Amino acid sequence: MIRKVMSRALPSEGKGVRVFYGEFINVDYVFGYIGRLIHGESGLQNIYILENEFWGRMLFINNNLQFTSRDEFVYHEALVHIPMQSVPDGKIKKVLICGGGDYGAAREVLKYSCVEEVIIVDIDPRVPKLVEEYFPELLPENPKDPRLHLITEDAYVLVDQYVKEGKTFDLIIVDSTDPDIGESENIQELSHALFGIDFHQKLLKICPEGVIVQQCGTPFTMKNILIGVHRIYRSVYPENQIYIYRANVPSFGSDNAYIMRCPFEYPQIPKGKVIINTLYYDFAVHGSSFVLPKFWRVELGL
Amino acid sequence: MIRKVMSRALPSEGKGVRVFYGEFINVDYVFGYIGRLIHGESGLQNIYILENEFWGRMLFINNNLQFTSRDEFVYHEALVHIPMQSVPDGKIKKVLICGGGDYGAAREVLKYSCVEEVIIVDIDPRVPKLVEEYFPELLPENPKDPRLHLITEDAYVLVDQYVKEGKTFDLIIVDSTDPDIGESENIQELSHALFGIDFHQKLLKICPEGVIVQQCGTPFTMKNILIGVHRIYRSVYPENQIYIYRANVPSFGSDNAYIMRCPFEYPQIPKGKVIINTLYYDFAVHGSSFVLPKFWRVELGL
Repeated sequence: MIRKVMSRALPSEGKGVRVFYGEFINVDYVFGYIGRLIHGESGLQNIYILENEFWGRMLFINNNLQFTSRDEFVYHEALVHIPMQSVPDGKIKKVLICGGGDYGAAREVLKYSCVEEVIIVDIDPRVPKLVEEYFPELLPENPKDPRLHLITEDAYVLVDQYVKEGKTFDLIIVDSTDPDIGESENIQELSHALFGIDFHQKLLKICPEGVIVQQCGTPFTMKNILIGVHRIYRSVYPENQIYIYRANVPSFGSDNAYIMRCPFEYPQIPKGKVIINTLYYDFAVHGSSFVLPKFWRVELGL
Repeated sequence: MIRKVMSRALPSEGKGVRVFYGEFINVDYVFGYIGRLIHGESGLQNIYILENEFWGRMLFINNNLQFTSRDEFVYHEALVHIPMQSVPDGKIKKVLICGGGDYGAAREVLKYSCVEEVIIVDIDPRVPKLVEEYFPELLPENPKDPRLHLITEDAYVLVDQYVKEGKTFDLIIVDSTDPDIGESENIQELSHALFGIDFHQKLLKICPEGVIVQQCGTPFTMKNILIGVHRIYRSVYPENQIYIYRANVPSFGSDNAYIMRCPFEYPQIPKGKVIINTLYYDFAVHGSSFVLPKFWRVELGL
């Protein structure tokens, strides 16, 4: 059951310092990793890369784990294939990924031949650079796929520009860090604006008839990101087009939540002809992802 | 989404020593808890109770977390309600719980009025005593329920005796510690024998037409308990009566696995009339629990 680490990158033996790295999940609950810190730098965001025997390589932004070599496939497949397969086959041609500078979501989207254009807009230019160097397994099968465009910009600003230009998309994926889960209530993550109501009002304008999916962290251990985003979705999108689903990303601990605006009927039933080269996702997983534990539904008022 | 700790026990402020408690999930992957160690003793097994703001109270056996006040309901509801609801309503009258001295499984089983007799057989008499003192929320609604019998004995020995006596059950729940996940391959947990082929051969004799369910740990982070037990089930029970399901118990990290021998058709479809007083389980959760991630199925050869 323990899946082998699939990093195609060279091992970096002897590189970096050996540390016990602690990631605070809550005030008195910590995930600890023994490993080598092979990259670390401050800047727009604090980025650290740890090499650990169990998880492979791990990328942290502001001390929050973003992904590991070993299980990123679960997070990215759930983020992408569920919206892709929720709509009639071939419907999704133009895709915008807000955040997602790690290429993982783009890698999955580009597996579909119906997709004509994928734009990644990430505020931090170091994320794609570091992934190219340390996590080549996250790159698309063809890293120079002509359909893929990487833009270094605040997604909020670019979306605003697209509203003015009248550019539209069939699928928008908000694949950002979790908002505001630092030690202090006053620390705003760069992703803060992507969780606001005005951002979604703009997304609706550039994706009036498409799917808009957003990752919402792990509800059990985090502040109420899912509850907050659910409230925003309900105030921007029609109630009957809103769906919540989940996936267990082992390195995140408890189940990760995703929220989706899907204007097509019965997204719980996958509609694609084929699923391409997945490790986590298949049509059975698709439907079961929408089933939430009773206590989630109670908390969400569903 | 963050569920309030529901312990009805009194807070033990000032009791015990304040520690940073580390639970090794793997060689270089650790769950760390800051809290007060309010009870600790060696003996048959090393038992520690930690009080932590996030998780409430946590019971460790041989440094492996068994349950927390905050999320034990997920583990126990999945362990009990899925087998209970997999069979025609009212079929389960006599229940044997091997291990389960924490009362959690018995609490759920006793919610069904069709159940006439529940026997808990646990090797360590301290577990029920400590639960009575520190985790009263795990006790059955009526702690003196006349249907409940607690026997302090090695489950293997008692099962052997029942084979000789010809006593039979409608449901057997193997609710033990994980086998042999200590630092050394040579350390055998007390639960070791409950994961062997001869134990299951005996269970089949005392439960020839009933359901036999066993918890199998978290496949992603543990040694291949699930793969091993699956092999044993296939050699003892008919292949078409074996089912695997899962539940995300947040404090365990990745999904927990359960394996079930169920001689009744379509256990994925719940058959009970009502579900009584649950926080995690409902009929939608029932069916989705049987859907496994693709990489689990690949590893299991399913």
